[in-house]
Amino acid sequence: MQRYNVAPLDRLVEQFERLPGIGSKTAQRLAYFVLNMPKAQAKEFSEAILDAHEKIRHCEICCNFSDKEKCPVCSSDTRDKSVICVVETPRDAIAIEGTGEYKGTYHVLHGVISPLNGIGPDQLSIKQLLARLGDDTVKEVIMATNPTVEGEATAMYISRLLKPMGLRITRLAYGIPVGGDLEYADDMTLARALEGRSEF
Amino acid sequence: MQRYNVAPLDRLVEQFERLPGIGSKTAQRLAYFVLNMPKAQAKEFSEAILDAHEKIRHCEICCNFSDKEKCPVCSSDTRDKSVICVVETPRDAIAIEGTGEYKGTYHVLHGVISPLNGIGPDQLSIKQLLARLGDDTVKEVIMATNPTVEGEATAMYISRLLKPMGLRITRLAYGIPVGGDLEYADDMTLARALEGRSEF
Repeated sequence: MQRYNVAPLDRLVEQFERLPGIGSKTAQRLAYFVLNMPKAQAKEFSEAILDAHEKIRHCEICCNFSDKEKCPVCSSDTRDKSVICVVETPRDAIAIEGTGEYKGTYHVLHGVISPLNGIGPDQLSIKQLLARLGDDTVKEVIMATNPTVEGEATAMYISRLLKPMGLRITRLAYGIPVGGDLEYADDMTLARALEGRSEF
Repeated sequence: MQRYNVAPLDRLVEQFERLPGIGSKTAQRLAYFVLNMPKAQAKEFSEAILDAHEKIRHCEICCNFSDKEKCPVCSSDTRDKSVICVVETPRDAIAIEGTGEYKGTYHVLHGVISPLNGIGPDQLSIKQLLARLGDDTVKEVIMATNPTVEGEATAMYISRLLKPMGLRITRLAYGIPVGGDLEYADDMTLARALEGRSEF
């Protein structure tokens, strides 16, 4: 790829190229932008990267990102501790938070079972999930993994583990997206939407 | 916008959001990616930002980015010093380098004349360009600003300054892009392509 041929700048471009979804043209544009930032701002950026790496750990209860022992959700008194929503990544938890409808807690798996990528149940935070179900606090576990093959398999695996505990285990509803178009919905989604139809 | 609610992480997301063309979803994805990097890699990234800021300056001849007094092009013996290609940004110079056809030198304006944005000729490196034309080394100046209103105006302004010096002043050719489709070319481009037609 074309380069500036100026070592410190090329190194910066390479760093941006490593990021997901950033091609070499975009990396060049970003490096150029960073170079034109006021110095204080560049320092802030640089420090934010290290800072996040140093201060962020996993919440000891739900394994979500946190800068304290417990994340804001787990340490909140107003959240319903009897419901756990199991998600793949912290970003999925944010997406659900975004609805403003969910008042329970989360459990972040940090991945899905994916034998092709060498990720088995032991690499996920399933053990920590089981540990949370020891007493009788939790009444319902909502499986909110992605509707992909791996996400489904992971949800299936976990729900089988939890079945004997006599909990309510639920799954997010499948169906047509709100504002979507029947015409453009794929067969699978439409079939699931039919299957899961409800009374008017 | 939705946030992780974990200060160091949110700060990192905000830093990415400041970059051009990075929306809040992408910023989240990038921050998440950086957090999952090995620590050494995050450190490299963080340092590359500061490093570029500290080490990069403008070449004292052509004003392109450089980590030395002279950029690689200006300090090269194999480049034709009698031709200067005037571009808006260092990235434009890279684009022209990418053709592998150009053997002359560059001059980077670092912008265009744009009264609306408060950028006049004095904010650009026009003075430095004039300084390069003092002796008789330079025979041709190629105006390679972008084909926008501002780029055109800037090229016009500079060419008027240079006219009295008796140099050859040229402009990149306008025309249909190679591999393009006549049908989809805009009127302006097509008109210029007709105007600039050459013998078969």
